[in-house]
Amino acid sequence: MQAISIYEPVQESLCRVKERIGAVGDVSLSYQAGLLEHALESTGKRMRPAVTLLAANFNPHDDHLTETMAVAVELLHIASLLHDDTVDNSDLRRGKATVSSTWGRNAAVVAGDYLFAKSATLVCDTGNIRVVKRFAETIMDLSTGQLNEMADYHKHSQSRERYLKRIYNKTASLFTTAGESGAVLSNASELIVRNLREYGYNIGMAFQIVDDVLDFEASSEELGKPVGSDLAHGILTLPALFAIEQQKPDNPVLRWIGNPEDLEALSEAVEFIRSTSAIENARIVAKDFGDRALAALKNLDANTSRHSLEKIVHYVLDRRN
Amino acid sequence: MQAISIYEPVQESLCRVKERIGAVGDVSLSYQAGLLEHALESTGKRMRPAVTLLAANFNPHDDHLTETMAVAVELLHIASLLHDDTVDNSDLRRGKATVSSTWGRNAAVVAGDYLFAKSATLVCDTGNIRVVKRFAETIMDLSTGQLNEMADYHKHSQSRERYLKRIYNKTASLFTTAGESGAVLSNASELIVRNLREYGYNIGMAFQIVDDVLDFEASSEELGKPVGSDLAHGILTLPALFAIEQQKPDNPVLRWIGNPEDLEALSEAVEFIRSTSAIENARIVAKDFGDRALAALKNLDANTSRHSLEKIVHYVLDRRN
Repeated sequence: MQAISIYEPVQESLCRVKERIGAVGDVSLSYQAGLLEHALESTGKRMRPAVTLLAANFNPHDDHLTETMAVAVELLHIASLLHDDTVDNSDLRRGKATVSSTWGRNAAVVAGDYLFAKSATLVCDTGNIRVVKRFAETIMDLSTGQLNEMADYHKHSQSRERYLKRIYNKTASLFTTAGESGAVLSNASELIVRNLREYGYNIGMAFQIVDDVLDFEASSEELGKPVGSDLAHGILTLPALFAIEQQKPDNPVLRWIGNPEDLEALSEAVEFIRSTSAIENARIVAKDFGDRALAALKNLDANTSRHSLEKIVHYVLDRRN
Repeated sequence: MQAISIYEPVQESLCRVKERIGAVGDVSLSYQAGLLEHALESTGKRMRPAVTLLAANFNPHDDHLTETMAVAVELLHIASLLHDDTVDNSDLRRGKATVSSTWGRNAAVVAGDYLFAKSATLVCDTGNIRVVKRFAETIMDLSTGQLNEMADYHKHSQSRERYLKRIYNKTASLFTTAGESGAVLSNASELIVRNLREYGYNIGMAFQIVDDVLDFEASSEELGKPVGSDLAHGILTLPALFAIEQQKPDNPVLRWIGNPEDLEALSEAVEFIRSTSAIENARIVAKDFGDRALAALKNLDANTSRHSLEKIVHYVLDRRN
């Protein structure tokens, strides 16, 4: 896919990062090995490690150090997916059986813990306390996001503000860390660090909103999981929140949120969201974040890495799966 | 209980530590609050934070810093208990309903993640990269221990060596970190750091062996959970391993391990272990570790904190619950 050309300036580094991620599964115990291999051999876009590596490219730096950070960032992402899939009882992730559905929920919990821990030890290997602290805060953001999401299941009180806070916790926090840590580990100036942190924040927000749009817009084949899965869990994402604003009385989304037994309301709600301008409105909000990500880059050297970071913004906004 | 007098030199510090642990539950969301409060208000002995604080008392130091570390150590312990109880499907912990049995397994997974993350951010607050790295390795040890335990369920291949490695991972690693981090954060010499790390290792091993002995020796009322619970899960602890060595043919322990359906073999196995010298032999091994913990203290100043660390060894070896 086109990600290969997008990441061109860090392609070799990213290759080493992928190998090091794969090697985490090479543990002695066969029981762990199969499970970890399965979790680690993802068909994902490796966008978080790519942002980490690209963010380091505005200053001379030690490649091994930034690659270590990139491995840690991706492992944390994989660990959080393991726990999310367990908590959500998801059977499929990108069309592949989840660890919890294959090895059982207990194994997924413990494997997630193992990868959390592994990512933390790698960050410690950078020897940079600022980066370590930011990383620990990110783990905190991830779990706070998941706790808040669980607290919101089938609650009417969900709001756009709560949604934005939640997607910061669950997605944008780690992108922020990717941008910031790459910059910090290359000893960039505070101004550059701030720019790349802002880039990370905004690309992360855009990424998650587009993800939430695709959850309604794409087919289940494209998604590799059922359409409207958040809504099915009683969670309102941005398209659903826009759809609620559009039609208050007898709104199928509200009916479904109010009654988790009413599966007819669920399918009506999905159809309703797809048929209104809710999706379009959500895409406009995503585009705003994308524009802010681009704006955050304007002070940086106009090198190939900046160009690559810009292309990532367009890729995120235009992607179909 | 007598723990109060044992911890005398750090009693005030420990009091502040307990308050700070309790305050972690003061989060805005009512959903989280009840759950975290329940997890945090433990009747536990707070032995790990006590060791952390006492280990710092051989050098002048900043109390707030070592107390922060002590809070982190105990939070990590609580987080790992949350995940262990979830994975083991335990309903009771010290006679109290577990989080997973009350709030559900999903909530326990996510709350455990939250406390893991919270403990990691606190360790980062110490600003000491050595301590942070040791802490991350401990999280890794904890999850490796749990993964290996799961891999061993009802396996004949369990050995004394594997057992010792497993209890290091699940218990002694965190005690080691408690002793080492207290010393490091007080800027102690490398020799003192090594002594207190060794103390932590040996007290941790002794503590877990005694725990495993009590699992057979004590009554379910004293334990606050069923007798022989590890064995019931198909896990061989030291008394069970000694019992296997004592009688090879038609050994009820082996029969039970070989056939998880044979509940009659399970009760026979528990009775067999209680009736042989297996328990006594396990206590001898625990005593050895206790002696090594005491020996590790002999280079240290003979102050009240050293005396307190010595009393902890005797308390660990003599405790009945």
